[in-house]
Amino acid sequence: MTYCVGLLLDAGLVLLSDTRTNAGVDNISTYRKMFTFVDPGERAIVILTAGSLSVTQTTLARMDDANSDPDKRSIMNAGTMLEVAEIVGETLSEVSAQVADRMGAKAQSARASMIVAGQRRGGAARMFLIYPEGNFIEATEDTPYLQIGEHKYGKPILDRVVTPETTIEDAKKAVLLSMDSTLRSNLSVGMPLDMCIIKTDTQDIGERRRISAEDETFQAMSVAWSQALRDAFAEIEI
Amino acid sequence: MTYCVGLLLDAGLVLLSDTRTNAGVDNISTYRKMFTFVDPGERAIVILTAGSLSVTQTTLARMDDANSDPDKRSIMNAGTMLEVAEIVGETLSEVSAQVADRMGAKAQSARASMIVAGQRRGGAARMFLIYPEGNFIEATEDTPYLQIGEHKYGKPILDRVVTPETTIEDAKKAVLLSMDSTLRSNLSVGMPLDMCIIKTDTQDIGERRRISAEDETFQAMSVAWSQALRDAFAEIEI
Repeated sequence: MTYCVGLLLDAGLVLLSDTRTNAGVDNISTYRKMFTFVDPGERAIVILTAGSLSVTQTTLARMDDANSDPDKRSIMNAGTMLEVAEIVGETLSEVSAQVADRMGAKAQSARASMIVAGQRRGGAARMFLIYPEGNFIEATEDTPYLQIGEHKYGKPILDRVVTPETTIEDAKKAVLLSMDSTLRSNLSVGMPLDMCIIKTDTQDIGERRRISAEDETFQAMSVAWSQALRDAFAEIEI
Repeated sequence: MTYCVGLLLDAGLVLLSDTRTNAGVDNISTYRKMFTFVDPGERAIVILTAGSLSVTQTTLARMDDANSDPDKRSIMNAGTMLEVAEIVGETLSEVSAQVADRMGAKAQSARASMIVAGQRRGGAARMFLIYPEGNFIEATEDTPYLQIGEHKYGKPILDRVVTPETTIEDAKKAVLLSMDSTLRSNLSVGMPLDMCIIKTDTQDIGERRRISAEDETFQAMSVAWSQALRDAFAEIEI
């Protein structure tokens, strides 16, 4: 399992992913699930992945191949973010179908989904959730966040505090607390975390941070949040 | 879907259930999912149900039948709470198997699970989660709560505040806030709610309350909790 979340705000895009991959609870590993594609000032794209590692790695490898050949249609030369989402969707659905073909009855496990977020110069910042079949939905003002993987534990905090007007600083807090709730409740989501920020109209990664299990700031935030929840609980009257 | 939760505390048993039943999102109804079996001072048992309504209703009807015949083995004459759990498990698994037989390929939807909680005079208060196959697990000091149905949204608050030493008043708050988070995030869980309390060594239902959508106390608590979370969020530093 996995937990990845992206926010589409007036101030920019805020993305966070965990790194745990597992084939059964007795076989866990760390794999990056956040991938950045940047031509500074021109375009910045972040892809977050969830699901079958063989599917997501192959999908990314094919897109990388296309990126290195300027004659091919690729996410680095697509004219719009919508076209970027279409390319990711097509590649993901092709790879899923090929892997599923070979897996027969186990085809169900050859599934993966992705969040694609970014901005190119002259266009708006946009964020999409790409389903295993290649179709997708887009974040909007009403629902300015998208999640993939184990989304339930971390959803209540997002529903309560995130709006398009949320600042980048508050957004970082919101995704980290959303991740913190998920880490506590689901073993298949694990540290370290990857976070990155694309501020609006910069077309560049403004901040990129790997947060390890030993990260003192994150630990302090986690403890403070637990305490704040207990304090809030103590004050509620029924 | 459904959300039911039970707490096994030193002070007693606290149980809460929603009432929404649905066959598709376009066909929703209200059905009680909390059933009480009381012989005041002698034994008090509460059963919470989740899953196929045809399975849970038939299971309860058969147990009721047995209760009305003193010669039959029933939850009202079982010698221990463990035996009560066994009777519920056997009845549930029989009914599930019969319904599943008739449903063929759709047998997967003939599933239900239950929480059984109670105390008989001379025994300890105990609480069990009965799986569709009739096997069960029991709440312990380490994990003094059990949930059935849509358990994820409401779990973080329980993990943070509930221990065996929790008071009945705090426990009521905890299960109501746990339900509040679930109601906000999952349409298939709905008001009104049923709550009941069995205080330790009373062998009786000490408090029973139906909480409607218009209940002002619940609404005020829900608003206050949202505000408390937002305030706590504002104070956290990263």
